[in-house]
Amino acid sequence: MEREEIRRHLAAIVGEDKVQSHPSELVVYECDALIFHRRPPDFVVYPSTARQIQEIVRLAYANDVPYLPRGAGTSLSGGAVPISGGILIQLSHLNRILDVNPQDRYAVVEPGVINLELSEKVKPQGLYFAPDPSSQSTCTVGGNIGANAGGPHCLKYGTTVLHVLGAEVVTPEGDLVQLGSPQGENAGFDLTGLFTGSEGTLGILTKAWVRLLPIPEQVKTFLADFTSMADATRSVSGIIARGIIPAAMEIIDQLTIQAVENSHFAAGYPTDAAAVLLVELDGLECEIEDTEGLIGRILRNNGAREVLVARDEAQRAKLWAGRKKAYGAFGRLAKNFYLQDTVVPRTRLTEVLEKIYAIADKYDFSVINVFHAGDGNLHPMLPYDAGDPEDVVRVLKAAEEMVRASIDAGGSLSGEHGVGLEKRDLMPYLFSDDDLEVMRGIRELFDPKQLCNPEKILPTTKVCMEFREKGAFML
Amino acid sequence: MEREEIRRHLAAIVGEDKVQSHPSELVVYECDALIFHRRPPDFVVYPSTARQIQEIVRLAYANDVPYLPRGAGTSLSGGAVPISGGILIQLSHLNRILDVNPQDRYAVVEPGVINLELSEKVKPQGLYFAPDPSSQSTCTVGGNIGANAGGPHCLKYGTTVLHVLGAEVVTPEGDLVQLGSPQGENAGFDLTGLFTGSEGTLGILTKAWVRLLPIPEQVKTFLADFTSMADATRSVSGIIARGIIPAAMEIIDQLTIQAVENSHFAAGYPTDAAAVLLVELDGLECEIEDTEGLIGRILRNNGAREVLVARDEAQRAKLWAGRKKAYGAFGRLAKNFYLQDTVVPRTRLTEVLEKIYAIADKYDFSVINVFHAGDGNLHPMLPYDAGDPEDVVRVLKAAEEMVRASIDAGGSLSGEHGVGLEKRDLMPYLFSDDDLEVMRGIRELFDPKQLCNPEKILPTTKVCMEFREKGAFML
Repeated sequence: MEREEIRRHLAAIVGEDKVQSHPSELVVYECDALIFHRRPPDFVVYPSTARQIQEIVRLAYANDVPYLPRGAGTSLSGGAVPISGGILIQLSHLNRILDVNPQDRYAVVEPGVINLELSEKVKPQGLYFAPDPSSQSTCTVGGNIGANAGGPHCLKYGTTVLHVLGAEVVTPEGDLVQLGSPQGENAGFDLTGLFTGSEGTLGILTKAWVRLLPIPEQVKTFLADFTSMADATRSVSGIIARGIIPAAMEIIDQLTIQAVENSHFAAGYPTDAAAVLLVELDGLECEIEDTEGLIGRILRNNGAREVLVARDEAQRAKLWAGRKKAYGAFGRLAKNFYLQDTVVPRTRLTEVLEKIYAIADKYDFSVINVFHAGDGNLHPMLPYDAGDPEDVVRVLKAAEEMVRASIDAGGSLSGEHGVGLEKRDLMPYLFSDDDLEVMRGIRELFDPKQLCNPEKILPTTKVCMEFREKGAFML
Repeated sequence: MEREEIRRHLAAIVGEDKVQSHPSELVVYECDALIFHRRPPDFVVYPSTARQIQEIVRLAYANDVPYLPRGAGTSLSGGAVPISGGILIQLSHLNRILDVNPQDRYAVVEPGVINLELSEKVKPQGLYFAPDPSSQSTCTVGGNIGANAGGPHCLKYGTTVLHVLGAEVVTPEGDLVQLGSPQGENAGFDLTGLFTGSEGTLGILTKAWVRLLPIPEQVKTFLADFTSMADATRSVSGIIARGIIPAAMEIIDQLTIQAVENSHFAAGYPTDAAAVLLVELDGLECEIEDTEGLIGRILRNNGAREVLVARDEAQRAKLWAGRKKAYGAFGRLAKNFYLQDTVVPRTRLTEVLEKIYAIADKYDFSVINVFHAGDGNLHPMLPYDAGDPEDVVRVLKAAEEMVRASIDAGGSLSGEHGVGLEKRDLMPYLFSDDDLEVMRGIRELFDPKQLCNPEKILPTTKVCMEFREKGAFML
C-alpha cells in the first residue's frame, strides 16, 4: 500500500483531523526526553477508542508498517522514539478515568490519564495512586505501566507493576484481550506482570485496572547532613537493616547542594556538607512518633552532624523542593544534561559512587548525584553540549562506563527509566544469551512481525555475538 | 531408548541409590494432596546439584521423556502428579540455605528448603519469610514459587511472587539461566514474575533469591462474633475501605465453629454465632494501639456482638488453633474432604457464600467455609467418600459449580492453590481464547517439546473448542 493510501485508511478510522502526516507536524514526535536518537514517524494518529486502535494495528499488520504507542513522551530511555518510522499512536485522547471503586480500592483508567490527575481525582475519597515519577504532573499512567516507572516513594510502595491489577490490550495482531482483573487473579501465567514494563513492545494498552492506596495519615520529613558520602549511604543501609522502610530516602551530593543553595530553590541545605539525606516517613501519627527517635539515633550513630525535622508542611515542601529542583538548579551550568539511571546493592553505594566520580573526572565532566538511596537507585547527571558532536560521544562513553560499573557491583542497568533504545545494546552485559533468547521469544510470540515499537529493549543478534566473543556474559 | 537404558543413564547421573524404578517405590509418587488424579512416574530421581538436573533434563529432552519437579507434594491442584508418567525429579536433596544477607534482607535458597525452616533459620536476625501457606511446616520454597502460594498473611504481605527477587532455572532444553537478581532489576521482560506461579511448566528451579521481612514488633489478634455471615463479610470490607490492611482476616462459619468447639481444638468460639472473624494486626506497638480502637468500632458498627482481644500469646495461639485445625476438627465427619480455592471481590462475599451453601444443599453435601476473607479467597470444604465413585462424581460437580459461581461474580478460579490438573479444564471459563493462546505460546517458547510437567494449567485445544461452541468466554 502506498503512503497516501495508508494515510487515507488511517483517516477513515480516526477522522481526517486526527491524522498528521506533514513533516512540520511529525518533527514534534521525532524524540522523547532522551534526545540522542531522533526520527520522525510517517504518521501520527489520535485514536479515541480501543476499537480504533484495533483497526490501526490491523492496518499496520496487514501492510507491514511499524507503529508504537506514545503517552506524554517523557521517556528518558527513548521508549517513545519511532526509530523505524511508521505510525505513532498518540494516546492523549484516551484520557478518561472510567471508574473509581473506593470499596475495593482500584480505578479503571484509559492509558492517557495523567498520573497526578488520577491522584487528584481520588483525593476526596482519601486515596491516591502510588507511583510518583518526577514527571508525574505530565506523564501518563499508560507510560508508567509501559516503563514500570518508579519514583522517590517506590522505596516503600514499589514500582508500577505492584499497582496494576489488570490490563486491556490490543495485541499486535489486532485482538483486544484482557490480562488480569480487579482481583488480580492467581491463575495461569502472570501476563499482567509480563506486560507491565514491556515498553510498548507486546501490544497497546487501552485500559488499566490500577490499585489505589489510602493517603497516609501523617508525613514527616528529616534532613540529615554528613561530612562524608560514606556516612550518608551507611545511614541508609542502617535504617533498612533495622527493619524500617521509610516512604523515601534521597541523597543529594555536595556539588548539588551548592548549586541548589545558589539558586532560587535554596532549601536550607548546609553548604559545607558532603551529602544530605532526606528521609520521609509516612503512616499513622503514632507510628511515625515511634520511629522518629530511632531514625534520629541511627542517623547520628552513622555520623550525621545535624538532623532537622521539618516542623510544618511549608518547611517540608522547601526541603523537597531542593531535591526536586536539583536538576533545574544546574540549568545555568550547561546547555544539556544527560540523566543516567542504574541500580546497585545498597551496601555498595559508596564504592560505586566513588567510581562514578572517578569516571566523570576521567572524561572531564562534572557530575551531580541526586538519587533514590533507599533503593540503591543512582541517577548521575552529566552536563554536556548537545550541539558539540565530540561532547555527545564523550558523555555517552562516560555514562556507559557508569552503567557498567553499576552492573559490575552486582547491580542493574535501569532502576526505573526502562531500557528503550538507550540501554538496548548493554543488555548482553547484564543478561545471558539464554535470557535474551527467552525475551526475544516472548517478543516474537506476541508480535511475530516485530512491528510494535521495534528496535526497543532487545539488542540485535549481532550485538550479542560481539559480546559473546568478548566473553562478557553474566552466567 | 529403552526404559532400562534410561534408568542406567539416570543412575550414571545421580548414582544407583538415587534412582527408584520399582512399582512399590513409584506408587508413593502417584499423586499429591489432590487425590482425584493418579499415575505413578516411571522413575524417581534425587539429584543434589543443578548440574545433575541439567543432565537429567537433557536426557529427557533427547529421548522425549516427560518429567516434572516435586517438592513436598503438598499441591492441592495436582501440580506434582506425573500424569504423563516419565521422570519425577524429587528436589528434597537440594535443601540448603546457601546464604542469608540480613543487610540487604534476602536469602539464597535451594528449592527443597522447607518454608518454615527458612523462617526459623533467619529468626535470630529478626527476619522471616512471609508466605505462610497452611502446609508451611512441610511445603518447600520451590513449591511455593511454583504455585505462587499464599496463606492467611498474604492479605498484608502478598503472595509468593512479591517475595522472589531472582531464580536460577534449568530450562526445558537443559540450559542453566538466572532470572532476576537480589536487586530485582527492572530491565527487560519480568521473567522472574513469569516463572513464579508457572507450576513447574517453564523449567526447574535450582536456586532462588527470596526477600526476608523484619519480624513485626507486635501482633494482636481480635475475635469478633456475628449473628449473620453478611455482617461478618461487611466488617471485612469496612476495615479495608477505612484504609487498614490487617495482617490477616479470617472468617469461620457456623458449622465449623460447632465442629471446632466439639473437638480437641476448642478455641472458645461462641457456638451460637453465625460466623466468627479473626482479625490480626501486626507492626509497631503504637501502630497497633492506634488502630485497635478503630477496628473495634468498625466491627461493632457492622453488627459484632462481642469483640475479644487476645490478652496474651497463649490466648492468641488458641484462637488461631481453631482456625488452623478447623479441617482437622471435621475429620470424624467423613472419610475424605475436598478443599476448594476460589476468589471473589470482597464486596460479593456474602452473595457467593449463599450460592455455595445452596450448591452444597443441592448436591446433598454439608460444606464448611473457613476462608481468607480479606482477600475474598474462599475455601469451601466438602466431606465425601473417595471410595464411592458416585460420591466422587458428585463432589467434583458441586465443586465445579462453586468455582463457576465465583467466576460469575467477577472472581477467579484459584486464589493460591494453582490450576494444575484440577482447574485446567475450567481455564476457558475465565480466560479468553486469545489469552489462552498467549499462555500456550509462552509454554511452547520455554518448552517446545511440552515435556516439562505436561498436561498442567492449560487445557487442550479440544476443551477450548467445546467452550467456544457454548459461548462461555469472558471477552
